[in-house]
Amino acid sequence: MIRFECDYAEGAHERIIGALVKTNFEQTPGYGEDVYCEEARALIRKECKNEDLYVQFLVGGTQANLTVIAAALRAHEGALCASTGHINVHETGAVEATGHKVLPLPSEDGKITAEQIEEAYLLHINDSSFEHMVKPGMVYISNPTECGTIYKKAELEAIYKVCQKYDLPLFLDGARLGYGLLSPENDMTMADIAANTDVFYIGGTKVGLLMGEAVVIKNELLKRDFRYFIKQKGAMLAKGRLLGVQFAEAFRDGLYYEMSENAIALAEGIRNAFLKKGIAMRYDSPTNQLFPILTQEQCAVLGKDFAYSNIEALADGRKVVRFCTSWATKKEDAETLIRAIETL
Amino acid sequence: MIRFECDYAEGAHERIIGALVKTNFEQTPGYGEDVYCEEARALIRKECKNEDLYVQFLVGGTQANLTVIAAALRAHEGALCASTGHINVHETGAVEATGHKVLPLPSEDGKITAEQIEEAYLLHINDSSFEHMVKPGMVYISNPTECGTIYKKAELEAIYKVCQKYDLPLFLDGARLGYGLLSPENDMTMADIAANTDVFYIGGTKVGLLMGEAVVIKNELLKRDFRYFIKQKGAMLAKGRLLGVQFAEAFRDGLYYEMSENAIALAEGIRNAFLKKGIAMRYDSPTNQLFPILTQEQCAVLGKDFAYSNIEALADGRKVVRFCTSWATKKEDAETLIRAIETL
Amino acid sequence: MIRFECDYAEGAHERIIGALVKTNFEQTPGYGEDVYCEEARALIRKECKNEDLYVQFLVGGTQANLTVIAAALRAHEGALCASTGHINVHETGAVEATGHKVLPLPSEDGKITAEQIEEAYLLHINDSSFEHMVKPGMVYISNPTECGTIYKKAELEAIYKVCQKYDLPLFLDGARLGYGLLSPENDMTMADIAANTDVFYIGGTKVGLLMGEAVVIKNELLKRDFRYFIKQKGAMLAKGRLLGVQFAEAFRDGLYYEMSENAIALAEGIRNAFLKKGIAMRYDSPTNQLFPILTQEQCAVLGKDFAYSNIEALADGRKVVRFCTSWATKKEDAETLIRAIETL
Amino acid sequence: MIRFECDYAEGAHERIIGALVKTNFEQTPGYGEDVYCEEARALIRKECKNEDLYVQFLVGGTQANLTVIAAALRAHEGALCASTGHINVHETGAVEATGHKVLPLPSEDGKITAEQIEEAYLLHINDSSFEHMVKPGMVYISNPTECGTIYKKAELEAIYKVCQKYDLPLFLDGARLGYGLLSPENDMTMADIAANTDVFYIGGTKVGLLMGEAVVIKNELLKRDFRYFIKQKGAMLAKGRLLGVQFAEAFRDGLYYEMSENAIALAEGIRNAFLKKGIAMRYDSPTNQLFPILTQEQCAVLGKDFAYSNIEALADGRKVVRFCTSWATKKEDAETLIRAIETL
Repeated sequence: MIRFECDYAEGAHERIIGALVKTNFEQTPGYGEDVYCEEARALIRKECKNEDLYVQFLVGGTQANLTVIAAALRAHEGALCASTGHINVHETGAVEATGHKVLPLPSEDGKITAEQIEEAYLLHINDSSFEHMVKPGMVYISNPTECGTIYKKAELEAIYKVCQKYDLPLFLDGARLGYGLLSPENDMTMADIAANTDVFYIGGTKVGLLMGEAVVIKNELLKRDFRYFIKQKGAMLAKGRLLGVQFAEAFRDGLYYEMSENAIALAEGIRNAFLKKGIAMRYDSPTNQLFPILTQEQCAVLGKDFAYSNIEALADGRKVVRFCTSWATKKEDAETLIRAIETL
Repeated sequence: MIRFECDYAEGAHERIIGALVKTNFEQTPGYGEDVYCEEARALIRKECKNEDLYVQFLVGGTQANLTVIAAALRAHEGALCASTGHINVHETGAVEATGHKVLPLPSEDGKITAEQIEEAYLLHINDSSFEHMVKPGMVYISNPTECGTIYKKAELEAIYKVCQKYDLPLFLDGARLGYGLLSPENDMTMADIAANTDVFYIGGTKVGLLMGEAVVIKNELLKRDFRYFIKQKGAMLAKGRLLGVQFAEAFRDGLYYEMSENAIALAEGIRNAFLKKGIAMRYDSPTNQLFPILTQEQCAVLGKDFAYSNIEALADGRKVVRFCTSWATKKEDAETLIRAIETL
Repeated sequence: MIRFECDYAEGAHERIIGALVKTNFEQTPGYGEDVYCEEARALIRKECKNEDLYVQFLVGGTQANLTVIAAALRAHEGALCASTGHINVHETGAVEATGHKVLPLPSEDGKITAEQIEEAYLLHINDSSFEHMVKPGMVYISNPTECGTIYKKAELEAIYKVCQKYDLPLFLDGARLGYGLLSPENDMTMADIAANTDVFYIGGTKVGLLMGEAVVIKNELLKRDFRYFIKQKGAMLAKGRLLGVQFAEAFRDGLYYEMSENAIALAEGIRNAFLKKGIAMRYDSPTNQLFPILTQEQCAVLGKDFAYSNIEALADGRKVVRFCTSWATKKEDAETLIRAIETL
Repeated sequence: MIRFECDYAEGAHERIIGALVKTNFEQTPGYGEDVYCEEARALIRKECKNEDLYVQFLVGGTQANLTVIAAALRAHEGALCASTGHINVHETGAVEATGHKVLPLPSEDGKITAEQIEEAYLLHINDSSFEHMVKPGMVYISNPTECGTIYKKAELEAIYKVCQKYDLPLFLDGARLGYGLLSPENDMTMADIAANTDVFYIGGTKVGLLMGEAVVIKNELLKRDFRYFIKQKGAMLAKGRLLGVQFAEAFRDGLYYEMSENAIALAEGIRNAFLKKGIAMRYDSPTNQLFPILTQEQCAVLGKDFAYSNIEALADGRKVVRFCTSWATKKEDAETLIRAIETL
């Protein structure tokens, strides 16, 4: 069984785990206040071309989402996001458990637009019963989205402009950020992301690290007391240096992008194989997640040798499934899958 | 200006406020443990034909909703409800502020069906990622709904059957219960409501009391420790007897129904006037809330002498507005409105 | 049985309930946006000698406490208060239910000092693990306190100075404010209270109203969006004018103080009777709550004709109990009690 | 600088990190549903001599505490614990952020007794205002405690008996469990812990793993839906197998105890050196945390070469500090410290 069901089936890139082994017996202070975290912070600031960014390392994505959102909102405010957004669908109500409503906007492809945000905000503010409704207090987007799609630079700039106009902090969930930045359709750098958000995170768990997400904060109000929130939410790793060591290795010489590239190159080949076979995609994803619509027979055939995720059952009996590549996907495994698709 | 914008524009029925005046200088214990609350409880149990019901009096509807829901759910559970449900739209995230996600089901008329509930529950339970999503933990409906529509007895029985099948407590918000029970289309008694829910409340604020909602609990687990929740949510009235006095008066000899009947009779006349004039209704409401769709000109004309609520702006420029009658609406005011509609 | 167990055993002062009766059939907008609320706000601003104060009316004390605190704090902050404070002891964790820790300071008499607040704040800020502890984010005091004691003007000024120095909003719970202001030992006006707090409330429930607390906000940040919090916490009364009518009546010509005076005068007589009899007081209260320490025999004798509250069982078998007077206490009832004490 | 400030200054035992390296490129399902987690669960069940235990792996201690407590309590309940308890002092209000009050009991040495628990519970239940106070809903203890002390088997049995009598789930925080079990004063096995608690966790972060705590649940109600809580609290590790691999290695052949033993043996030597020197201990700890009371001069001398933690400043100018040994402490480093103490 070759696993394409997700992008966290293996451990870490050999250089990443090597760095952990190499530093294993060094003694450092805890809670992310060690030299490796400092080095990783400096590297990320440099990558983002902004020396004033505040960087903290958390273990996972849901944790990062709920911690940032709890820090950004007052109790009567909610987070605008796509109806498909991870915080709205797949975090067991983590945001609501901190007291805040998620305010979903309709989305066909995982993305939302500046227009939607402005319209939702104005609709709220101009309603005569506005105080009886949750106030939009921030905007959450993901890039790539849960559908594998990505934002164009102009789209992100437009969103950020609206957010600034209405004083809504913009938070970008970058759990798969590397795969977005390496997509052939991408026209942004990490510095562009930093310039056009109030806070975002660089996903490590799904991009070659054992675990870890680097939260990057530009908004001064959000920086204030942020570490209290990390601790309160159970997100402060005692051996914080484990995250610092990994992110430093990932950003010292471009390894993060190199790992991302592997996933993108192999995903492209698999997508082409599906399309050639006349198999449609549920979402037009240019990143590492592919969402082919398969017949039950096709599912049965591919399911014998390959693990994939079930996403959605269509009314006509077909199924939307997900195949993911990752930093760890082997070329030969991708080729085996492609051959299997060709013989469907 | 004659007010039809809501059903809480006046104080209380003269008999209700009279009862408060009459008992004003009596001394009683606090927190709802007085003889008037006991009398009101007994009357409500009798009305519901169930001596085991547990009855507590709260001040308002949002308070009742959030207190019951916080008492009914574990932290990972949410409340299924119509997308139009009051808890989903007009309580400033009160339920989320207690940590729970509201799980909206699509609804055109404010109602949901047994089938929808079953489908949502099974979809959750059968999803391979079910633990990553909020678990449906109860069902919230309102009768009449926010759209003025009501459930038929067979519909409520079907919903309750599904709820019992999947161990989902059923909670009925009866903020306007009297107006539902007196509707010509209604085929239920209060005893039917009690028999087919785990918990419901009898609205007083909108049906002739100064304020107050009587929460009626049948479910044994919900009864347990319920008063702790009332206190924690700031919903325990020091002078609880104010609520007992009012509900006792309302249920001693049928005053609650008499007050409700006034609203229904007058609403029917107004609805007929709109329909005769060819003015369509957004929702087919047989209760005290009417939702005519008016042109801007019609709004301007009626707005000179009558207060109404703005509900929705349609794409074609027309507006959905709301006219409410209540226990307090005077016959002559309703007639004045009808004449104004006729001359539109 | 004559009730001295609390100060909410009766309804409302006859002028207060009379005002409700008189305005009962007027039509007004809901949610506190009516002319009576406006009038009451203006009267309270005048009483406080500050035209910029923001005034909202809530139904009860726990509700007012949890709403103000939820509005004032970010999620990692807590409220410093006396260990005896109502929010720490007798609100079923209402503040914690909004996510915030109550941070108790030791207190023998219900009061805390400016020194204690400063010390607690500095201890926190200077701890090397400060981010692992809840940050003091505001200060809660009550006046009179739960022990019946009151703050002197100099004490309150000192507390407010420390609060301002460390940017800690100061919140004064005035559930029994009238009884504090009318105490012979008091040296403050309501304007002094307003000048030396960020937010406080004027208790109505215990001082002659059916129910109601007037929350008075000076702090600009707290004013912002405060009504959203009222609604979210279930504290927005549909018929808000009920509170406006009552507070307007209470402050139109000094009725609030007149009602308070009754309680104070009668309490003084009762206290003197206890002291003459050699019965010690647990707290040296100059307000309407008295805390005599009685033998079991004395309890039995007084318990036959008078209701009182049990507060604490002492190791020597004696009991601390509470006798309250109020706006409603009749002179003859107080005299009956005094005679009973004299014959102990 | 040799670090004795905490027991998480290094990475992981070489066998533990070796196991991660060895399995690094294997593909497994995510979220703890892999063969390594299954193996670790089986080993732990065996160690606890109870095949019905439910075992889940979380990343850190605060996370484990808040997740278990949120799963165990209804909204009106709180957790009884020692005033010194980690959840009361050093988790930035993590428990309160889930809505629950921590109910501290006085403690001089980090422990609480069965008598204290029973007394607190009865005091609550017998108070006439019990519904106005947070209901004790569970008991939290730690072993070893934050003071380094441990429970005797008879003490734990007595506590569990009281907990069962009053239906209070007993939760034991075992962040340093290995160091407790290897203490010369200990008379319990892990099976005894499992037999006398409803839920406990086996600390990995501080006992030789990179990170990880194994939550072991015996209580059937707590088992139900527990993984939803893990996900909601951001505590579900995508690559769950990282925790399974480490715990399996630790429990396959007794490595967990071996690692613990190192800390205990070296701590004993250091303690003896302090005591010989006439330096008193703040707490009489028989485990890996030592709390000597040092003069400022002694602090200055030791601070030159050794990192320690500051715990408390005494009124006489002396300081309580903390020296920790761990699985990683080198014998030569301990000896260097001992020599330094001898020359004080």
